[in-house]
This record gives sequence, C-alpha cells and structure tokens, in this order.
Amino acid sequence: MARPKNDDFLRALLREPTTRTPLWLMRQAGRYLPEYCETRKRAGNFLALCKSPSMACEVTLQPLARYDLDAAILFSDILTVPDAMGLGLYFAEGEGPKFERPLREEWAINDLTAPDPYDHLRYVMDAVVEIRRALDNSVPLIGFSGSPFTLACYMVEGGGSDDFRTVKTMLYSRPDLLHKILTVTADAVTSYLNAQIESGAQAVQIFDTWGGALSHAAYEEFSLAYMQRVIAGLKKTHDGERIPCIVFTKGGGQWLEKIADIGCDAIGLDWSTDIGLARQRVGDKVALQGNFDPIALFASPEAVAKEATRIMDCYGPGNTGHVFNLGHGINQHTPPDNVRVLVDTVHAYKRK
Amino acid sequence: MARPKNDDFLRALLREPTTRTPLWLMRQAGRYLPEYCETRKRAGNFLALCKSPSMACEVTLQPLARYDLDAAILFSDILTVPDAMGLGLYFAEGEGPKFERPLREEWAINDLTAPDPYDHLRYVMDAVVEIRRALDNSVPLIGFSGSPFTLACYMVEGGGSDDFRTVKTMLYSRPDLLHKILTVTADAVTSYLNAQIESGAQAVQIFDTWGGALSHAAYEEFSLAYMQRVIAGLKKTHDGERIPCIVFTKGGGQWLEKIADIGCDAIGLDWSTDIGLARQRVGDKVALQGNFDPIALFASPEAVAKEATRIMDCYGPGNTGHVFNLGHGINQHTPPDNVRVLVDTVHAYKRK
Repeated sequence: MARPKNDDFLRALLREPTTRTPLWLMRQAGRYLPEYCETRKRAGNFLALCKSPSMACEVTLQPLARYDLDAAILFSDILTVPDAMGLGLYFAEGEGPKFERPLREEWAINDLTAPDPYDHLRYVMDAVVEIRRALDNSVPLIGFSGSPFTLACYMVEGGGSDDFRTVKTMLYSRPDLLHKILTVTADAVTSYLNAQIESGAQAVQIFDTWGGALSHAAYEEFSLAYMQRVIAGLKKTHDGERIPCIVFTKGGGQWLEKIADIGCDAIGLDWSTDIGLARQRVGDKVALQGNFDPIALFASPEAVAKEATRIMDCYGPGNTGHVFNLGHGINQHTPPDNVRVLVDTVHAYKRK
Repeated sequence: MARPKNDDFLRALLREPTTRTPLWLMRQAGRYLPEYCETRKRAGNFLALCKSPSMACEVTLQPLARYDLDAAILFSDILTVPDAMGLGLYFAEGEGPKFERPLREEWAINDLTAPDPYDHLRYVMDAVVEIRRALDNSVPLIGFSGSPFTLACYMVEGGGSDDFRTVKTMLYSRPDLLHKILTVTADAVTSYLNAQIESGAQAVQIFDTWGGALSHAAYEEFSLAYMQRVIAGLKKTHDGERIPCIVFTKGGGQWLEKIADIGCDAIGLDWSTDIGLARQRVGDKVALQGNFDPIALFASPEAVAKEATRIMDCYGPGNTGHVFNLGHGINQHTPPDNVRVLVDTVHAYKRK
C-alpha cells in the first residue's frame, strides 16, 4: 500500500515539506451537515450509526464530498471502548452519553478488563476497512481514541460532568483505584488503536478532552503518564509506512513541553494557545495541529478568512509541521458555507 | 485608619514578610454554609440579599466566624454593575443570572453609559461601610468587580453561556461594537472599584471569569487591555495605605507574564497552573494567589491536607508573596469540615 495521492497531512505530521498547509476539522462529520442529519435519522440513533460500518463509512465521507479536506477521520465515538468493557453506553435524548453501570465499586474496578478490539469492537474495524476502500488512497484516514483519563472520567462519573466531582474525589482519596482503572484502560486504548492501524488507519489521534480539568501535578500523573504508556505500545509502522500519533489535550497549553516528550509526533492545540509561541516552545520536536476557535465560524465570511489568515501568519514562515484544524470540535450550529471559506483560505495561503 | 490587626493578607500582596501564609477562599460566603442558606431564605432571593447592606454584611462575616480566615470579601455579585447600567438583572430559579435587555443592538450599545456608583450602586457602598465597621479592623476587606470582558459576556449573551457564541460573533464580525461596550464597562468598573475603595475596601480583585475562553490574541485585545485600563484608573492609596489589586483570569495560566505587566499587585491562579513554575515566570513582579482545586475539598480530610501541603511545597521557600486560595469559587456542596482542615493545614505549615 502506497501513501495516499494527497499525503500533505502525513507529511506535515512528520515535519516533511508539503505543497500547501493541510487541514481537517475535528468532528468534521457531524450535525452541522444536513446530509449527516439525514443519515443519522435513517440509522435511528447515534449509537446505531456508530455501530453500522456502512453508515459510519457514509458519514465519514460526507465532509470530503463537500470540502477539499486533506484527511478523513473515522466516524465513531470515544465511548465505544468503555461500552465494550461492559459499562452499557446509552444516549438519553438531549442529555449526552450515559453509562448504565458507572465504575465506582472496588470489586467492579478489580474486575475491569481490556476488551479484544477484534471481538467487541469489530464494527469499528469493519468501518475502517470499508472507509479505506471507499477513499481509494485519495487522502489518509485518521483513527482515534479517547485518552485513558478522559475515558475514566465518563466511566466513573457515569456520563458528562461540570466539575468531575466523583472521579476527582477518587483521584485525591483513592488514587490507587483510579490508577487501576487507568492501567486497564490504557491497555484497552493501545490494543484498540493498534487494531485500527492494522485495519488501515494511517495516523491516530488521542483525544484528551478532560486532562485540562486537572492540576498540573495530577495531569502528569493521571493523564499524561497513561498517554505515554499508550504511545509506547503503539505500532509505529504498518505496511512499511510510519503511523504518526497526535495528542490533543484540551486546555493543555501550559504543558506543551511535557506533552512533546511522550513520544507523539504532533500536538493538537486548542484556540487559547498562541501557535507561534507554541512552535518556539516545542521547536522541531513535534508538529502542531490547530487552532482556529470553532465559534469564529459563526462570524462573517470576511471575519472567518481574517482569523484563519491570522493563525497562518502566527504559525510563521516555513511550510512544515503545521496541520490546520479547529481548536475543538465543530459546533453543530455552524453555517456550512463558512467552513468552505475556512478551507479555501487555508489552502490559498502562501507561506513566506 | 491603621492597618488591620491581622495584615498578613495585605503584606503578602505587597510581597512583604508575613507571620504565616494568609488565606481566604473565593466565594467563602456561600451556599456550602448552612447559616448562609438561612440568611438567603430570609432575604427571599439572591438579589434581595445582595441589595440589603445589613444582610450582605451578615453573610460576609459568616465564614470568618467559623474559620480563621485572613480576609473578608464583600458579599455581592459581579452582575450588579450591568444591572445598574439598566440591563435588568434577574435570577430564574435554578437557571443562573439573566438580563431582561441583552445588549445586542447598535443603538443600545451607543446609548450605554457608566452608572454613578454612589447612586445606582449605593447599596454596595453601604454594605462596604457596614462590613468595615463590623470587622473592627480585625482583618482586611476585599472589594471586587467582574472584568470588563466577563461582564460584556453576560451583557451580550443575556446570561451564562457554554460557548459564548453571541459575544464571540460580535468580537470577530463587529469588533468596533464590542470595543464600545468594553470602553464604557471599563469606566464603570473603574469608578465602581474606586467607590468601594473610598468606602473602605482595603484591596480589590478583578474577576476575569471568561477571559480564558478567548484566543491568546483576543484575550490581549478584548480582556487584558481593558483590565489594564481599569487598573490605570484605580486609586492606588486610601487613607495613607496602599490598596493592592489582584487580577484573576480563570484559564489564564498561559498568559501570566502578560498579566503581570498591567500594573496589578497579584495574580490569581486557577488550579491548572503549577504555582512553583508560575513564581519562576513572574519573578518578584507580582504576588501569587491560589491555587487549590476546589473539588479536592470533596476528598478525605487526609487527602485535603496532603493536597494543601503539596501546593505550599510547590510555591517553595520564603514567606513572601503567596496568598493561599482556591483556584476557583468554592462548590456549593463542599463539606464545611473539610474547609477547616484546609485552613488549619495552611496556617500550620512551616515554610523552609
């Protein structure tokens, strides 16, 4: 298997020269697209959509049909992993994800085991294979997982949380229990990402959505250390090609030097970080991905173009090491026409 | 008027030696205290409590009766200022603050004026006078205001927001309108804080709760610049005593050097920042306040003491320039007994 025809995204992650700055958008296949809403309606619900390889493939390709994006990302949900661990994922309408059996009792934590990704998460691997076939080597496919800490937040809280009171109480009062959960979850994430790579994912991203809710010290001990453990266990090549790994900690701008040290190829930045200063801080160690404020997509087309240009200017000269992206997932109410303005502005930009 | 008998808090802000590390807690007069809930019930509602100088005085003193705190903070709400500007503040039960007349139309923005604090906000000044009398110079009284940007968020959104879509759309598409709001609001905040100082506040804190929701560039232009404008207009002394000013930007850990440059005496840190690294970054320029994770107060008493000690160790040797505090307001469900553990641990700590 050769590199895809458009390999700018992979080249940027490996800090090789590119023809233009590649971009993709976190949650690019999502509710802001009417065609996505149609498919989801047909699926019946969100989880059924995730679990159908053919419909997951369909929605993965939708944003690529509309926009000149440089990568596809597997359509799935980070909570499929704890679901496969037996916690019973469900989505209460308008309420976000929930688990039937939150992980709080010591006996349940001791019983936790990493699922075989080819068994309980077979539908994800089938989707990866189907998407790769459909992409026909046009652009690379990104696989992904939640970080062990982010998954543990949902597993212990039993759903989303404003303040992470349950998982943080465990962190401070019974760190041994949280470390047990994180160890098993890190093993689960490692084998899950490796199965995606074996099935055809050409890069992987670890979404550490909630690591930024921790103190610096707790972040290192409970989130960063387990992402390092995952990365140490990842297949670095497949079919003779390097498989780059991106780490995205939302709210992690203070910890870039630490993140750059755990073996990843790129760091995803949220919009609060100055990408030019970030580049100075990490040097040539890793590539940077980001970091357009997703809410700026609600502004006028002129303002969207201006803000995209500002970020490109801020990254600075030299056509290596930058993957343009949002600083967080695209908002469901985003006007699709503004996404086109963003994509076109980034691709038309001439680096000094 | 002399300095209060316990002036450790003021000394720490001015980087003078103290007998022990002083502490107070953001939102220390609040719903986690049963006696507060009693008074609030008696007041009828939250806004009535804010607008009654005698009841505001009563709840201000409640945490000082329970705990050995080194400062009192005026009980009030940051939204009294836009309320005085005519936006019509109200609290829908269980829904948080709302404005009857959100600020979105160009004509309304052009009509916006800064209120006379001795007129529309007289009840706040009366509360300051009454609290100072009741404190009898035992500990200092802190006055406060929301930052211009944080107030503008509520004024434009019409209440709280998850994503600040309305105010950010204005920021990107019509920055001129937002600058107009911020200019008037900065003038309002300046005269409001000066009136508190003239009435007896011995230090002031600017709460920039939402500045951290901005990109680095937007933070400098729309939040930091207006806090600088406020500080430039503040009375630096009153009755012969220096009036120190604290700036707290939640999520501002990446911008400490910039914040230290706007003329404040101290920076409030949320819990995500390593306070030892923060001290290295700002040097002797400003004092630091923080930064215990408020959710760690839900842990066991032993874990509370351990985490408080970790932060004191992290700040490092030397008994100057540190005011212990939480990294954000205390959670309403906090067990009051754990607050005592925190206070006692900090006061018993011996700096190397």
